[in-house]
Amino acid sequence: MLPTVEYRDDCIVMIDQRKLPGAETYVTCRSVPEVAKAIKTMVVRGAPAIGVTAAMGVALGLKKSRATGTARLAVEFQKSCDLLAATRPTAVNLFWAIDRMKRAFGAAAQAGASVSEIGDRLDAEARAIHDEDVAACRAIGRHGGELVPQHARILTHCNAGALATAGFGTALGVVRGAIEQGKQVSVFADETRPFLQGARLTAWELTHDGIDTTVITDNMAGTFMRQGAIDLVVVGADRIAANGDVANKVGTYSVAVLAHEHGIPFYVAAPTSTIDLGTGDGSGIPIEERPDREVTHVGSVRLTPPAAKVRNPAFDVTPSRYVTAIITERGVWRAPYEASLKEAVAEHG
Amino acid sequence: MLPTVEYRDDCIVMIDQRKLPGAETYVTCRSVPEVAKAIKTMVVRGAPAIGVTAAMGVALGLKKSRATGTARLAVEFQKSCDLLAATRPTAVNLFWAIDRMKRAFGAAAQAGASVSEIGDRLDAEARAIHDEDVAACRAIGRHGGELVPQHARILTHCNAGALATAGFGTALGVVRGAIEQGKQVSVFADETRPFLQGARLTAWELTHDGIDTTVITDNMAGTFMRQGAIDLVVVGADRIAANGDVANKVGTYSVAVLAHEHGIPFYVAAPTSTIDLGTGDGSGIPIEERPDREVTHVGSVRLTPPAAKVRNPAFDVTPSRYVTAIITERGVWRAPYEASLKEAVAEHG
Repeated sequence: MLPTVEYRDDCIVMIDQRKLPGAETYVTCRSVPEVAKAIKTMVVRGAPAIGVTAAMGVALGLKKSRATGTARLAVEFQKSCDLLAATRPTAVNLFWAIDRMKRAFGAAAQAGASVSEIGDRLDAEARAIHDEDVAACRAIGRHGGELVPQHARILTHCNAGALATAGFGTALGVVRGAIEQGKQVSVFADETRPFLQGARLTAWELTHDGIDTTVITDNMAGTFMRQGAIDLVVVGADRIAANGDVANKVGTYSVAVLAHEHGIPFYVAAPTSTIDLGTGDGSGIPIEERPDREVTHVGSVRLTPPAAKVRNPAFDVTPSRYVTAIITERGVWRAPYEASLKEAVAEHG
Repeated sequence: MLPTVEYRDDCIVMIDQRKLPGAETYVTCRSVPEVAKAIKTMVVRGAPAIGVTAAMGVALGLKKSRATGTARLAVEFQKSCDLLAATRPTAVNLFWAIDRMKRAFGAAAQAGASVSEIGDRLDAEARAIHDEDVAACRAIGRHGGELVPQHARILTHCNAGALATAGFGTALGVVRGAIEQGKQVSVFADETRPFLQGARLTAWELTHDGIDTTVITDNMAGTFMRQGAIDLVVVGADRIAANGDVANKVGTYSVAVLAHEHGIPFYVAAPTSTIDLGTGDGSGIPIEERPDREVTHVGSVRLTPPAAKVRNPAFDVTPSRYVTAIITERGVWRAPYEASLKEAVAEHG
């Protein structure tokens, strides 16, 4: 499995996803601001991976702290959390992971833990978040794999793979799960402009695993659906509202409408941490607008004339009526989502 | 107006559309094989522009001929026609223009014209095809402009502009026509992967004319439609079948489905020469598959890993049920298209 993000003793090491597939290089972060910058500039991306990285960042901050008392530590901790929370607005996993670290801090402080004990406790919490994410992806793969027919030709958008998670992937976890269940599948990867997560990352990690992968430009998805060349769609999610509306990489909405038009199942695969019952529907999900340069340039090549304006929303919202099912580590959830997602997030009794 | 292609005494000069908007350079073709290569490699592209250029190429071939008799000239002429017809398969304007040159040759030969008279006759025919294309675009602009509401926000895909025609444009002719009618409009230009005709060419020629233009990636079109930010779509066409099915740049089909889903008018603007009554429906239109490299690279930047496969169909077919109206130089044609398109192409009585 590819090491998306690794928590070492005094640093966090990430594969630089901006440079793939041309170069396999790693970025080492030794402070909270460095981790925040890595998230903001998309060295690491993908909702679950961002959550895991932020948790590691919080833990790293405590480890690097020179605070001698818990009051001072708490101030630094809050500052770290705020800095990391300000990196990207859409993926709820980021806030979920930070909240979980905050609860762990609060519980340890409440119990009278020392500065070093709090550090150890949050260190363990970050590692648990990492390990649970891998386990969740594997469970998503088992549940989702069962939805995949033999010889399925699967379309995916963006990268919801090992590189977007602590490992194995969500949407690509479903692909891998199907293969582990003995199915032969092939994948169409939308290239996913402007950041090209499909062309660069999905194609890289799938071909790395020997999975049959064909890259297409985003505007070809409908064309191949109409030709009967696609059997199902599976994508990840950055946030799922209480009613089942799904925020995911820009272009997901178009793929969902096209799948609906062609009667092709459209699945969303995500860990439970992506479900945000506090947001009623998709209209409440903040959509990040990223820098123009991602659209105007590829590498140093300028595509657009300077006088042209540009828009660059990084995500869009797919209304739940287009979503055939949502696959989490706990199972497969279907409409009506208000009820099923409540059950999906309920603590096991 | 930008000089897309210019017929000079002993050569054809074209703006190199592969290099725009970064560099404004020109390619000079002095022989039929050079013209054929320019069409094939997309120095010049756009269905009407390809037709005009091919006609000029045929005329240039006659002018450069050393044949002393009409029999020898006819052999060379046929060879030129075959070479030019083999460049690109989808745009019917190419075959239409070559057929028209063949009819002119046949008529002149039939009338006992000399080698030099035949050359003059076909020279005039090529110039007429050029001038008629500009006139057709202007008429398309007048008819189409009337369909555009005041303050319309217009989405277009690919480049069906001055650069795709002898001048003024078809889809962008509608934009220009609306402006000439006193309307204030703004344009969303799909970047149009892989060749980026929208980001590079549409944005360049519209901003050159001072028209408010915003480039978006192809996968954002649905997102902005859902936000209510787009009032109508207008695109060009490479071939329109007898039943109104439209072959156009890949991704047009997706835009049409999305427009239909959002109740947004979807207009196709093209000269009558694009209508091919000999092809019953879209399934009979050959779709060109272009080199992988257009998808795998931008300039010298490699996007995809070598192990990933690629597909690159240059066009797709939009079924006529998604087409609100077809705008030609003779008027606006609506469903049922079997009847209206017959009328659209009928000779004026």
